[in-house]
Amino acid sequence: MSSGHNEKVNQQLFLKRVPEGIAGPEDFEAKQLPIPECGDGQVLVESHYLGLDAALRLIVRDSDEFLFRVRPGDIVRGSAAGLVVESNNPKFAVGDYVLASGGVQNFIVSNGEGLERIDVSQAPLGAWLGGFGVSGLTAYFAVTEECKPQPGQTVLINGAAGAVGSIAGQLCKLAGATVIGLTGSAEKCVWLVEELGYDIAINYKDADWYEQLVEAAPERLDVIFDNVGGTILNESLRLIGMHGVVLLCGSTSQYTEEEMSGPSNYIWLGTMRARMQGFVIFDYVERYSEARARMARWIRDGRLKIPSYEVTGDVDVFPEAFQRLYEGKNLGKMLLKLPAAD
Amino acid sequence: MSSGHNEKVNQQLFLKRVPEGIAGPEDFEAKQLPIPECGDGQVLVESHYLGLDAALRLIVRDSDEFLFRVRPGDIVRGSAAGLVVESNNPKFAVGDYVLASGGVQNFIVSNGEGLERIDVSQAPLGAWLGGFGVSGLTAYFAVTEECKPQPGQTVLINGAAGAVGSIAGQLCKLAGATVIGLTGSAEKCVWLVEELGYDIAINYKDADWYEQLVEAAPERLDVIFDNVGGTILNESLRLIGMHGVVLLCGSTSQYTEEEMSGPSNYIWLGTMRARMQGFVIFDYVERYSEARARMARWIRDGRLKIPSYEVTGDVDVFPEAFQRLYEGKNLGKMLLKLPAAD
Repeated sequence: MSSGHNEKVNQQLFLKRVPEGIAGPEDFEAKQLPIPECGDGQVLVESHYLGLDAALRLIVRDSDEFLFRVRPGDIVRGSAAGLVVESNNPKFAVGDYVLASGGVQNFIVSNGEGLERIDVSQAPLGAWLGGFGVSGLTAYFAVTEECKPQPGQTVLINGAAGAVGSIAGQLCKLAGATVIGLTGSAEKCVWLVEELGYDIAINYKDADWYEQLVEAAPERLDVIFDNVGGTILNESLRLIGMHGVVLLCGSTSQYTEEEMSGPSNYIWLGTMRARMQGFVIFDYVERYSEARARMARWIRDGRLKIPSYEVTGDVDVFPEAFQRLYEGKNLGKMLLKLPAAD
Repeated sequence: MSSGHNEKVNQQLFLKRVPEGIAGPEDFEAKQLPIPECGDGQVLVESHYLGLDAALRLIVRDSDEFLFRVRPGDIVRGSAAGLVVESNNPKFAVGDYVLASGGVQNFIVSNGEGLERIDVSQAPLGAWLGGFGVSGLTAYFAVTEECKPQPGQTVLINGAAGAVGSIAGQLCKLAGATVIGLTGSAEKCVWLVEELGYDIAINYKDADWYEQLVEAAPERLDVIFDNVGGTILNESLRLIGMHGVVLLCGSTSQYTEEEMSGPSNYIWLGTMRARMQGFVIFDYVERYSEARARMARWIRDGRLKIPSYEVTGDVDVFPEAFQRLYEGKNLGKMLLKLPAAD
């Protein structure tokens, strides 16, 4: 063993019970386990950052409706960015930075499948879990291939300060559109406009948010980029413009609800010859490196920021960070920065 | 005056009050009025058929949400197919058959705008209000330009026996697709399969209709052609296939509801990279005659049927016919055949 990790333990986070409302620390349990053995053909990765994803709330539900499910007693699913600390696999060397989907723990053992090598000269390690990772790629392909905003068009980003929204809004600005962001606090509104260059940001907790939106979009909306679902999607549908696109990218507002609600204003799609469409990032997997090269250039030129909101702590802090994600504290991707990152 | 209509009266139908539930005779009032004068540049049309449209229920609501509204005291909106009986307009001659949107009455006076001359050699007069009129053109452009079903694909028509659905299903068969129809009675199921050539028809009043649909579409649905909205749209969304199209063509189930309901299963659009899209027939107005020429050939060759369900009576029978439409008695377009048609 080369890196001294054998004095450490592997802390793993398990789901204790099906949460009600926002999941909290009482729904999880952290256990200290030995560091796994790195067998033939295997790679041992030490996690430096863990990504927090609102959709986790969906897969811990008491429902088999979704492809993945985490049941009480299971390790919590999650993505990590970390360092290869031991390798018996010719494809990975000690010292390589990698992305791994090995759950919420300090050490991940893998046969190499699903590990993705990271070039930290393109973007810092943590960014690869968020704005330069799947969240950023989602924003990139959704904007450039699905919504295709044109100069002069008006785009609304619902969930504008989140991991995907914060990148999507900037990419729509780069495409020449007027960008309106809906988000959940006055602080985030200031940040969207001053840091990310949104044209207008509206706090959906304002009683008159819809009237503010009507005023902000006098010629209606060419694109609604929706990360939240629920009331916000439903109300904004009333403003969809002629031949508009409603891109469904998430429905975070619904993940804690017993019954999902549907957008009754979908009939506006008819009147406006608009379409509401789904999108799955994995369809673009062959083009990830092309997208990253382009995004890396924009980052270098100062035209694109990759925001993340870091909570510092060990694996047992993950539930608290998740709670803060649902409280909407994050500006950009919410990350848990583990002790190994220091 | 040339046709003896001066011994007749013009019966007109007015909305008496905003209906609750399905509109009934008590919500309307028929009045006998003199036949209108045919002034300079005007045309007088005697209605032979009136078309009944479920969407009428929507525009008599106590709401300004829709483009058109019929208020208590207003004449009821409706389309007529009839005969020019007097003309002071060089564009129309006595004896011409025309379509007119002059409301529910026996005689319509017009300056010629909005009148459309009918070629009854292509399809009989009544058909021009339904399967050969806007309903049929809606089905035609929705299928050929928006849904584009391919041979071997599976299409679901919600509201399969209605004015639009009965044509749409046949056109999808002509395109080589497997066609499943959802409708509201066992009698209509038999009719869809035996008369219109649907592959499978399912009665949505059966308790296990969804299970029947799952069985009928083992490879999911490439197209959902939705005329009804509500529960049927929502449940069928769970079966949308990869890159599927949900065409929104109407939402009859919702027209009597106080609050429209939204399809909570819209999240399946994401998983399946599918799209739900609106469509407005008037965008295709330049191509109506091309579509009709093609449909007329299919009718002549026995490949397309233009079904209609005729109720016989004068203008005052319209409310009863409307009620029967909402009770789902019609096979194809519901028409009121007026005494003048005999």
